[in-house]
Amino acid sequence: MSTPVLEPKMLCQVALVVHDIEATARKYATAFGFPIPPIIQTPGFDKARTTLDGKPSEATAKLAFLQTGQLVVELIQPDEKPSVWRDFLDKNGEGVHHIAFRVADTKATEALLTEQGMKTLQQGLYVDGSGMYTYVDSAPQLGVMIELLENFPKDKARPA
Amino acid sequence: MSTPVLEPKMLCQVALVVHDIEATARKYATAFGFPIPPIIQTPGFDKARTTLDGKPSEATAKLAFLQTGQLVVELIQPDEKPSVWRDFLDKNGEGVHHIAFRVADTKATEALLTEQGMKTLQQGLYVDGSGMYTYVDSAPQLGVMIELLENFPKDKARPA
Repeated sequence: MSTPVLEPKMLCQVALVVHDIEATARKYATAFGFPIPPIIQTPGFDKARTTLDGKPSEATAKLAFLQTGQLVVELIQPDEKPSVWRDFLDKNGEGVHHIAFRVADTKATEALLTEQGMKTLQQGLYVDGSGMYTYVDSAPQLGVMIELLENFPKDKARPA
Repeated sequence: MSTPVLEPKMLCQVALVVHDIEATARKYATAFGFPIPPIIQTPGFDKARTTLDGKPSEATAKLAFLQTGQLVVELIQPDEKPSVWRDFLDKNGEGVHHIAFRVADTKATEALLTEQGMKTLQQGLYVDGSGMYTYVDSAPQLGVMIELLENFPKDKARPA
């Protein structure tokens, strides 16, 4: 046993990219006996501070979150601009895009993953600015992309 | 809210198909700070009673299970025979193949899913015969394949 880079028990989301989020959300709602979840539009660079390969990006997406109790199933419908979501959808069609882990310190986790050859692809803030997400190029090693989710402490200012 | 076909809180597994399960399991062990999990070889039709599109199949796979606390990450390396795993790997490469839900009654759940246009693709027994798995053709509707997992009651004989 070595020191974990990712805390297995912090696995908290499974996320799919889809072509038509309203249609898919409706089908999940039927299968799960749920009300149809709200669809959230992510903002542009101005608010989301999205970067792709380290460069500012205006890519956005529509999101829906399905609470399953143990973890969240997230649906993502990307716009046409380059993003890790659009790239997956164009190459693979609909499917599971990533699995997400909560982390306490994104920078420290990124450094450890980079040592293992998994570098950051896309990064940005949550829609409400309360935390940040980081997509790591882990598919060649782990078979799936990993997302790191860091919730900022409530009293901590949002990083510049 | 309608009656659920799938209990969201029964989501219990995320499973990937991979080319080299030993190599991928080693990388997860490193990332998660885990010991390398045992690799399990599934048996042929004689024991697993595998069916594909309703017909007996000799397809097998190597499996590894990573306990993450909330749910299990399963790695699957299929053999070359036709199966839902081999089909995905050939079409999409490595990636998340399905998400799995525990069910109390496979036949009842299959019937409800079939009504929604999601029919059974592959079915079989657990390696130790203690339950059965069912893969449903849900990707066109839900963006990902669903697996139903039914654990047989301990005092119930294994179905013929």
